[in-house]
Amino acid sequence: MKLIIAIVQDKDASQLSEQFIDANIRATKLSTTGGFLKAGNTTYMIGIDEKRVDEVLTMVKESSHSREEFMTPPVNLDASMEDTTAYPVKVQVGGATVFVLPIEKFKQF
Amino acid sequence: MKLIIAIVQDKDASQLSEQFIDANIRATKLSTTGGFLKAGNTTYMIGIDEKRVDEVLTMVKESSHSREEFMTPPVNLDASMEDTTAYPVKVQVGGATVFVLPIEKFKQF
Amino acid sequence: MKLIIAIVQDKDASQLSEQFIDANIRATKLSTTGGFLKAGNTTYMIGIDEKRVDEVLTMVKESSHSREEFMTPPVNLDASMEDTTAYPVKVQVGGATVFVLPIEKFKQF
Ligand code: NI
Ligand code: NI
Ligand code: NI
Repeated sequence: MKLIIAIVQDKDASQLSEQFIDANIRATKLSTTGGFLKAGNTTYMIGIDEKRVDEVLTMVKESSHSREEFMTPPVNLDASMEDTTAYPVKVQVGGATVFVLPIEKFKQF
Repeated sequence: MKLIIAIVQDKDASQLSEQFIDANIRATKLSTTGGFLKAGNTTYMIGIDEKRVDEVLTMVKESSHSREEFMTPPVNLDASMEDTTAYPVKVQVGGATVFVLPIEKFKQF
Repeated sequence: MKLIIAIVQDKDASQLSEQFIDANIRATKLSTTGGFLKAGNTTYMIGIDEKRVDEVLTMVKESSHSREEFMTPPVNLDASMEDTTAYPVKVQVGGATVFVLPIEKFKQF
């Protein structure tokens, strides 16, 4: 058994939670802030068999990895007519940090 | 020293907190959700001497282990007269998950 | 890499957060209660290169260590005239508990 601690952005958490449920992986969720990721984030604690660690890492990577998305910024109403067209711009979203920790004992009561 | 992370149901947490205080065990409480236990849950972090690990495990087991309780369901007002008697039914309550982690350094300032 | 878990009093957290930012140390903050410290407390999780562990420990120690401060208690309005002068009294503030944990894998996506 290993303990996986995964920190993801809030916006990626619900999709990841669903994936964990589908894969019968029991994850405890902590509400966390700041630091690793600028936006609000969610931390998962997962006790998992050593053989499934890479499976969990892949799930986190696929649903939460850092990536660029196009976002249309709000139109600036103070600008002159020429500037009012809002062009989509690239923004960085997502990103995840994962720790895999050794466990000496794991008990379920 | 070891770090114990114990996840218990909210309904079992106050009794467990009292036991920790009585035994002079300092536990930091995190509010957590979902995953290991369907209901709201509470996570404790406890730094403890190796010799007392089993004592803590016993406390968690005794106050939080999975067990059946009898619960009387609410009477269904839409049912016919014959069905209005509410019989107590068995429900599963409690349950705890505990990780014991190795520590490289433990400091108190 | 190591995982540092640091539990400090809420009143010391904002200064410590600033120090982490200045030193380019990414810390994830958990809201925690009770146990190690009587007052509300804040828990930081920090993934850090082994070479910088002592630097983090020093930061936590410097901003959060247990210390005495003078506090002027509120005047007791029910007391006789002779007792109404409030003298500053020493109170214990701060205190921190830090765990340094081994990591088997550390991933950023
Ligand atoms: Ni992708
Ligand atoms: Ni029992
Ligand atoms: Ni000092």
